[in-house]
Amino acid sequence: MKGFFQLISSSDFLNLFDRFHPLDTETVQLGNSAGRVLAADVTAPEQLPPFSRSTMDGFAVRARDTFGCSESEPALLTIVGEISMGTSGRDIVLRPGQISRIWTGGELAAKSDAVVMVEYSHLIDEETVEIFRPVAPGENVIRAGEDTEQGQVVLAKGRKLRPQDVGVLAGLGVTNVTVQRRPVVAILSTGDELVPPDQQPGPGQIRDINSTTLAALVEESGGIANQVGIIQDDFDTMFAACLDALEGADMVLLSGGSSVGQRDFTLQVLERLEDSELLAHGVAIRPGKPTILARVGNKALFGLPGHVASAMVVFYLFVRPLLRRFGGMTTDLGLLPIQAIAGEQIPSAIGREEYVRVQLIRKTDESHPVALPIYGKSGLLTPLVKADGLLVIDRDSEGLDKGTTAQVLLFPSA
Amino acid sequence: MKGFFQLISSSDFLNLFDRFHPLDTETVQLGNSAGRVLAADVTAPEQLPPFSRSTMDGFAVRARDTFGCSESEPALLTIVGEISMGTSGRDIVLRPGQISRIWTGGELAAKSDAVVMVEYSHLIDEETVEIFRPVAPGENVIRAGEDTEQGQVVLAKGRKLRPQDVGVLAGLGVTNVTVQRRPVVAILSTGDELVPPDQQPGPGQIRDINSTTLAALVEESGGIANQVGIIQDDFDTMFAACLDALEGADMVLLSGGSSVGQRDFTLQVLERLEDSELLAHGVAIRPGKPTILARVGNKALFGLPGHVASAMVVFYLFVRPLLRRFGGMTTDLGLLPIQAIAGEQIPSAIGREEYVRVQLIRKTDESHPVALPIYGKSGLLTPLVKADGLLVIDRDSEGLDKGTTAQVLLFPSA
Repeated sequence: MKGFFQLISSSDFLNLFDRFHPLDTETVQLGNSAGRVLAADVTAPEQLPPFSRSTMDGFAVRARDTFGCSESEPALLTIVGEISMGTSGRDIVLRPGQISRIWTGGELAAKSDAVVMVEYSHLIDEETVEIFRPVAPGENVIRAGEDTEQGQVVLAKGRKLRPQDVGVLAGLGVTNVTVQRRPVVAILSTGDELVPPDQQPGPGQIRDINSTTLAALVEESGGIANQVGIIQDDFDTMFAACLDALEGADMVLLSGGSSVGQRDFTLQVLERLEDSELLAHGVAIRPGKPTILARVGNKALFGLPGHVASAMVVFYLFVRPLLRRFGGMTTDLGLLPIQAIAGEQIPSAIGREEYVRVQLIRKTDESHPVALPIYGKSGLLTPLVKADGLLVIDRDSEGLDKGTTAQVLLFPSA
Repeated sequence: MKGFFQLISSSDFLNLFDRFHPLDTETVQLGNSAGRVLAADVTAPEQLPPFSRSTMDGFAVRARDTFGCSESEPALLTIVGEISMGTSGRDIVLRPGQISRIWTGGELAAKSDAVVMVEYSHLIDEETVEIFRPVAPGENVIRAGEDTEQGQVVLAKGRKLRPQDVGVLAGLGVTNVTVQRRPVVAILSTGDELVPPDQQPGPGQIRDINSTTLAALVEESGGIANQVGIIQDDFDTMFAACLDALEGADMVLLSGGSSVGQRDFTLQVLERLEDSELLAHGVAIRPGKPTILARVGNKALFGLPGHVASAMVVFYLFVRPLLRRFGGMTTDLGLLPIQAIAGEQIPSAIGREEYVRVQLIRKTDESHPVALPIYGKSGLLTPLVKADGLLVIDRDSEGLDKGTTAQVLLFPSA
């Protein structure tokens, strides 16, 4: 018997994630924090830079002492010292007519408010220098606190840390960073026809592809994958494996059972788990219709389509956004949407959103890339290898004409 | 004295990388291969799938037995067995008029060439079934080798493995994967004003930001970062540290010294290393002009600008492409170029390429995103935190008018 599907829209599916909340937090060392998600706003404990610094090699001056000077009428100033790197410039106090040598990054002398580049100076003797160009107050200077004032929020909660963000934390002396814990995802493949990748399949058997693919997708999305392995296709085994997997995981992905019998088992298992709530059974997308979502407390269980191409679409559309939510990010796809031009006519059916695997051909001119659909049965792997992303066709559309502009969700890649 | 710069163009700089060749290879387990770069073509050791499989639950048939059937004149066929999952369908041989139950993913019975969906059948009794719709040969079937023929190149050398690629390897039983070794990058910060991030700076001192930022950039680009730390700013210390760093690394990044004195030391050190060749000293870009590149055998040494914003631009424009080359990928930026519209007038100087940090504002309509320049001295960190990428202005351009379309290189993000 075909299972009875209550199809919901993809946006309704995403709204179900309101029932889940972000996981707890942990503290990691600065060097391990890139790519992690901030669990709290980072407020500057001090101003940055801590003192006014020169951005040039040259001379720290009182800007007014240079006003009106020129090539023909240079200002003649007295050198009263040199500010060595890593020493306090404040130890030198400039009086009118005085100037101090300074290097890039050095602290300005007391009473100085600008830096003259060495290029616009000429040494008369060890103590006297001619300046050819006037500087305005603040010129060639980064003033104390110009980068960040003390108490200012420099990085907001929910931000995935990039190299430059980690640099800011280093600059502020934040060497322990509070981040969201990475969600742990248990991956179960069901199917009596499956053998692990390292085994030679016997007659009627094939290697389990979904476990490996889903594990890589989980890691790509910031999660920690726990490959439980292949589960025999009977209710009791699946129920026990699922119960076990739930113990140590925030999310369980059941996949591989693409026959109706296997799907029924998945549904039964998810329904029979204590305190489980079946949130969705079927979604109006193609591929990916027979997706199941259940909840046990704050843990999520997905029943994914058995075909790897379909499972991958469902992963990007739903599993990834929920992983992002668990991980403290915004509950969206986290895929870059770009505009592309349909390279040929692409048919679609009204009543469901279609996600078409496409290859993108970039032209050297300024136009959008051309999206070529990669057709192939959803049980095939090689079309996925060629694809750069998923072209989206609306629920109310009968398809795209060649030359039409459409949105393509790019697969992640670094 | 200001160092004398022989400025070369950015494309000439990239051409220097012809002097370097990809690193050696190593073998990793399938589960650790995602994100790694294939060191050799992967050829299918066997066909995939290994046998013709059903894509539906239903009945394996000889297609001709269904020709001409319809709702009003169903074909009456004899059920001769059921192909259980994971067993050989070939054990059942269909004779004309015979049919066998099959599940999704099951191996077709011998002599069958199509599958009738269960929805288009009606059981008369345990041994007899009515079929309402004809199927064509091959319908609802993935034939043996349809995904990959034996001996076919399925993944090419130089490919960075995505989740679906790893899935293909799993399907083919390739559980040990030969990949390029990840380049090891030693990172040295020079500057007497620097203290490590975990220390409180004294007067005139600031925390070392570049080491942490560059390490995260290296890891983001697929390399292994080795933070050597802060090096005292004198020739002997720098020379010894550089020699030491070269031992265990494929690349050395020297950064932090942004005063002319420090730059001179870097140049002297790179020139004095045994068998070193100075390949470039200055590049016609902004920021990033005072970039130095030297070579010792197949090892590269970069002298990076001291300001973190400039160092980051040079990293993305040059260090990253060389890391990609070392890692067996194409020698390009590996940054996604997109078209954007200048949100305001952006001035530039003729004679050098300009890389302007921009924030992208995406509109909901179909147009390109708007690029807003983020101004700020290159010694500042917070402008980098706001930036999404680098807008490119040609060497021959005086700038962009508001509303002009330009290329933006997106910072990586997953």
